[in-house]
Amino acid sequence: MTAPCLDLHLTMPEWAPAYLETLPDFIPAVEGRMAAILELARLNFEKDTGGPFAAGVFEQESGRLVSIGVNRVVASGCSSAHAEVMALGLAQKRLGTYDLGGPGIPAHELVVNWRPCAMCYGALLWSGIRFLTIAGSGPELEELTGFDEGPVHPEWAGELAGRGIATRMDVLRAEAVELFRQFRRSSRLVYNARQG
Amino acid sequence: MTAPCLDLHLTMPEWAPAYLETLPDFIPAVEGRMAAILELARLNFEKDTGGPFAAGVFEQESGRLVSIGVNRVVASGCSSAHAEVMALGLAQKRLGTYDLGGPGIPAHELVVNWRPCAMCYGALLWSGIRFLTIAGSGPELEELTGFDEGPVHPEWAGELAGRGIATRMDVLRAEAVELFRQFRRSSRLVYNARQG
Repeated sequence: MTAPCLDLHLTMPEWAPAYLETLPDFIPAVEGRMAAILELARLNFEKDTGGPFAAGVFEQESGRLVSIGVNRVVASGCSSAHAEVMALGLAQKRLGTYDLGGPGIPAHELVVNWRPCAMCYGALLWSGIRFLTIAGSGPELEELTGFDEGPVHPEWAGELAGRGIATRMDVLRAEAVELFRQFRRSSRLVYNARQG
Repeated sequence: MTAPCLDLHLTMPEWAPAYLETLPDFIPAVEGRMAAILELARLNFEKDTGGPFAAGVFEQESGRLVSIGVNRVVASGCSSAHAEVMALGLAQKRLGTYDLGGPGIPAHELVVNWRPCAMCYGALLWSGIRFLTIAGSGPELEELTGFDEGPVHPEWAGELAGRGIATRMDVLRAEAVELFRQFRRSSRLVYNARQG
């Protein structure tokens, strides 16, 4: 066996810079932010670079686009490389801080095309994000895509609120569900079904 | 503002290779595995490279050491760089797969010096790990270190069992609590206290 590894390198897909170039620096309306994230999720599975999940970090008030992330589990060989973990880490790298809610920093919003899974829910908590915007929550994700959300805390939104994170739901919900339907029709890999 | 970032690079501390050299390739007894992880957690805060948390991935039966991880949030500027996320990702990189529980792979165990936080609990679920070994769970971590575990699912161990992950608790518990006391006496940074 090779020697133990000591560094992780997680990358966005090769097409990500070109997609970023199509986006404005600021997206004022929340529906516009979600539309950009839905398109990103669609590109990720259509280009066979990952699952139908995407996320973005925005300055909440101005709408400045800070980072985008897509699911990179299969491409990077790392089960933690979900869209939210990528977007949060890339925003923190760009801002040069592990705390997007630190002193002197404008409030940041995480926009995701469905309720974060059990892991990403926790990642959100530690990131300093102040607003979570999702297209929806509920069984559609698991039913249509086969992906597993895991045991998210039953009081998930209340727990976020208690930690100063406001949740906005159902932004472009119908469009997000339609995207999951497209993914199902594409018969692409669902990688977290139990294999062993 | 600089351009959006498109890759994340998370590294272990500079002293990690030297520590790895002190460890055998195989650690048969679970107490020996935990002792190695506790020493790793101690080194991480004593050397001012992160919080008092460490994790390792082992082949469960043989005790082969596959990876180690420490908390690198402050050093890497990434709030997701917890010890478990590092250890799981580094094990997957070494094995060349995002699924440590995939076909033909021996069962793997994650050894951590306390119950994983809300995020790492989810990271564990998606990693393919079959066994979780912890020194303890309960309020001592938060009381002694000031770090926040977040809203872990109330039925956390049962949910793991239902997904084929067995939990072994209270391995070197007293030693783990003593380490948290040492951290508290050292007056080092607790970085996830609410700053904003």
